[in-house]
Amino acid sequence: MPTITAFESSPDRGRGQARDMRVRWALEEVGQPYDVRLVSFAAMKQPAHLALHPFGQIPTYEDGDLALFESGAIVLHIAERHAGLLPAESNARSRAIAWMFAALSTVEPPIVELTMAMLVERDKDWYAQRLPMLQDRVRVRLSELSRHLGNADWLDGAFSAADVLMVTVLRRLQTSGLLDECPGIAAYVARGEARPAFRRAFDAQLAVFNASSPPTAS
Amino acid sequence: MPTITAFESSPDRGRGQARDMRVRWALEEVGQPYDVRLVSFAAMKQPAHLALHPFGQIPTYEDGDLALFESGAIVLHIAERHAGLLPAESNARSRAIAWMFAALSTVEPPIVELTMAMLVERDKDWYAQRLPMLQDRVRVRLSELSRHLGNADWLDGAFSAADVLMVTVLRRLQTSGLLDECPGIAAYVARGEARPAFRRAFDAQLAVFNASSPPTAS
Repeated sequence: MPTITAFESSPDRGRGQARDMRVRWALEEVGQPYDVRLVSFAAMKQPAHLALHPFGQIPTYEDGDLALFESGAIVLHIAERHAGLLPAESNARSRAIAWMFAALSTVEPPIVELTMAMLVERDKDWYAQRLPMLQDRVRVRLSELSRHLGNADWLDGAFSAADVLMVTVLRRLQTSGLLDECPGIAAYVARGEARPAFRRAFDAQLAVFNASSPPTAS
Repeated sequence: MPTITAFESSPDRGRGQARDMRVRWALEEVGQPYDVRLVSFAAMKQPAHLALHPFGQIPTYEDGDLALFESGAIVLHIAERHAGLLPAESNARSRAIAWMFAALSTVEPPIVELTMAMLVERDKDWYAQRLPMLQDRVRVRLSELSRHLGNADWLDGAFSAADVLMVTVLRRLQTSGLLDECPGIAAYVARGEARPAFRRAFDAQLAVFNASSPPTAS
């Protein structure tokens, strides 16, 4: 049974925005049970964890004598070894992998830049001036993605590993208000969140948060 | 023979920092001839190109009835179909793919953020204050990468598609001065640039620039 790592203390208070969520969801989609080892922020920068993840982050993935890092690579590894997350037809499979890279290389960076600025530059003099620029960069991507999706349910035919990555990338916008501007994208995210495998993955990471913190009214 | 797209007018004046360089290099490593179709910035946002690349960028890759986008996905597609860019052994192959994602998801975003700010925010009031923060984010990644590389020539054993992506990502730092602070990383980049396949790819993209602009003394 594979073992993944996740934050011991979730900085998003159980909203499932850390990158272990992608791996949990992919494992749930293919019905592969897994163990979770929780790591503290201090432990992530220690030699034992750095041997698994050279950049000192989560998630990692260990299965027998294989150790992997990078959520995209882990999801692809799972998708290549189980049915259900990649099309069987060769061209469709390559296109699904292209969308996996698109989620992480083209859509995620401006989203991370915006949400990081909202977190760490909110008190700076320049925040009010830079915020619209960062929002507009994300809006461009959402608009392009929306045009591509049209009335389709998923990125390229059947649900795939690319949707696992894209939906989890877009969920990082939840506190930004930008999803509300794009009903088509918001509906796409909601379709992903409605999948039973997503719910199981979400509940599993929420249980970690609840076990480490007393429940609050919010 | 596959056809890729590249900028009609290289914004880097032939320094080979656009993302077609990665695909050219991978194709040269495996000895696969290719055609190039040049596209203008205006054409990239037109329906014909958007049908190939939903985000209106380069490179794209067409081969028979397959059309792909995302440089990482294209390089992986090439590496899966030709010998020389991915290890044959299963675990080593998965690790090489993890490093491909690491190059694009973990190392490239702070580099793009820094170089984009150097390009478009240089005249802003906040530039002098933000620059050190952006540089430090890149320095953290370079330091982690440097620790991982140690005395090794390549990221994980033999040269692979991951090195194609990582070296091209790091080359974007050439105007930042940060490579000079990390001799180990600079030597790694130089090793990549010294490969005959890199030189052929570099010369091919430079020829496009030279054909469109009169040579200058610089």
